[in-house]
Amino acid sequence: MRVRSTVAYDGGSFHGFAINKGVRTVGGDLTEALARYLRHPVELTGAGRTDTGVHAWGQVVSFDAPDSADLLGLRTAVNRMLAPAIAIRSVEPAPEGFDARFDAASRTYRYTILNQEVPDPFLAATAWHYPHPLAVDAMNAAATAVVGEHDFSSFCRRQHTVAGTEKTRVRVVRRAIWRAADTALLHFEIEASSFCHQMVRSITGALVDIGAGRRPPEAMAAILVAKDRSEVSNLAPPHGLCLWSVSYE
Amino acid sequence: MRVRSTVAYDGGSFHGFAINKGVRTVGGDLTEALARYLRHPVELTGAGRTDTGVHAWGQVVSFDAPDSADLLGLRTAVNRMLAPAIAIRSVEPAPEGFDARFDAASRTYRYTILNQEVPDPFLAATAWHYPHPLAVDAMNAAATAVVGEHDFSSFCRRQHTVAGTEKTRVRVVRRAIWRAADTALLHFEIEASSFCHQMVRSITGALVDIGAGRRPPEAMAAILVAKDRSEVSNLAPPHGLCLWSVSYE
Repeated sequence: MRVRSTVAYDGGSFHGFAINKGVRTVGGDLTEALARYLRHPVELTGAGRTDTGVHAWGQVVSFDAPDSADLLGLRTAVNRMLAPAIAIRSVEPAPEGFDARFDAASRTYRYTILNQEVPDPFLAATAWHYPHPLAVDAMNAAATAVVGEHDFSSFCRRQHTVAGTEKTRVRVVRRAIWRAADTALLHFEIEASSFCHQMVRSITGALVDIGAGRRPPEAMAAILVAKDRSEVSNLAPPHGLCLWSVSYE
Repeated sequence: MRVRSTVAYDGGSFHGFAINKGVRTVGGDLTEALARYLRHPVELTGAGRTDTGVHAWGQVVSFDAPDSADLLGLRTAVNRMLAPAIAIRSVEPAPEGFDARFDAASRTYRYTILNQEVPDPFLAATAWHYPHPLAVDAMNAAATAVVGEHDFSSFCRRQHTVAGTEKTRVRVVRRAIWRAADTALLHFEIEASSFCHQMVRSITGALVDIGAGRRPPEAMAAILVAKDRSEVSNLAPPHGLCLWSVSYE
């Protein structure tokens, strides 16, 4: 049967999600544990290829399992093998041919900033500690510039491509909003059809520049139009970023 | 001047608070950073001697600093040296002779349990993952047995003492209550004049035995009266425990 599973992980111990020989990856550890439990090779597909150090709360993966597989038993056994950094939150049969990556309608990422002078040891692994004041209203005003269909070349890291395979950097952003969770925590939620490489961290970095007063809110639209990566000076660190959820159909 | 400071730390990287040559301790790191900033030797007193792996949100420490010391500058500089595992939350002048340990009227510890089948990577370092159902009402009924002045020998680890210096294990517990923070997180808060070694983890372990149905709630009073350490079978792991606050006068 085809299986769909939602997975959370602390990205701090991994070189990203995508399997990469010689380094520890989330996909590598997950594939190995599933194959050990199912006693046959597993080919895993993930909805989002999170980078080194980036976390996930709602990563979705798909794979094949024998029809006889006990999925609740699988969850318990695999969670024991993968603890504490990776946890299967749910696992269920999926329609034939379900593909966690190509069937995804949108991904939502959440970026967390601890915006107070004093650091917090219990948030050090999951929030960017930014000790200077940030104008959240200005950051929200600027964030509206990225909503809609745009060429995000200014916010995408160029990756090596085979000649003639240069990919489009046009993406559709459905939502981009900052929320003050309490006096000190800021959460940036951004939902899009898909994201190019380092797109959320680049957008977050530019918005923090604006919130700190180093650029006016209007700069966001200008950066986008420039289609020039060098316009973005500030790349937010990976440990504040989390693949929050993936939606289908 | 005399200085009082509130300190938070993730105990996972330390062999406890108390300075102990040859191993990394919270007190050792803190003393070294303060001495480096103040450029003179520092003698540090902490309100609670947390064990290996135990966290603190509101540990209080006292030390001497030159009258000219810039305490806000100290906080910023020392936090930079100690990040990410230790953070000075506040630092202020204290009355002459203030002693964080001997002047403390009570300590409050908080023990956190994640009570659901699925583990959570983001709580793995700060909550005891207990996957089986727990009857919180029974745990609260049993917890009332420890409130008041009692000989806590059943819940204290015997420590090596010089002949004739055997210390009393009588303590006054002011409050002991479980709260369900949401559907999955349970917090046990216990406040006492002071605690003997492993007292909170022993009491928590016994209460979890009761919540899991392995013993009746009445067992708690019986364990206490027995004054026999061997009555406690279940010692809760250190990473769920946190020195929450210390109160004075």
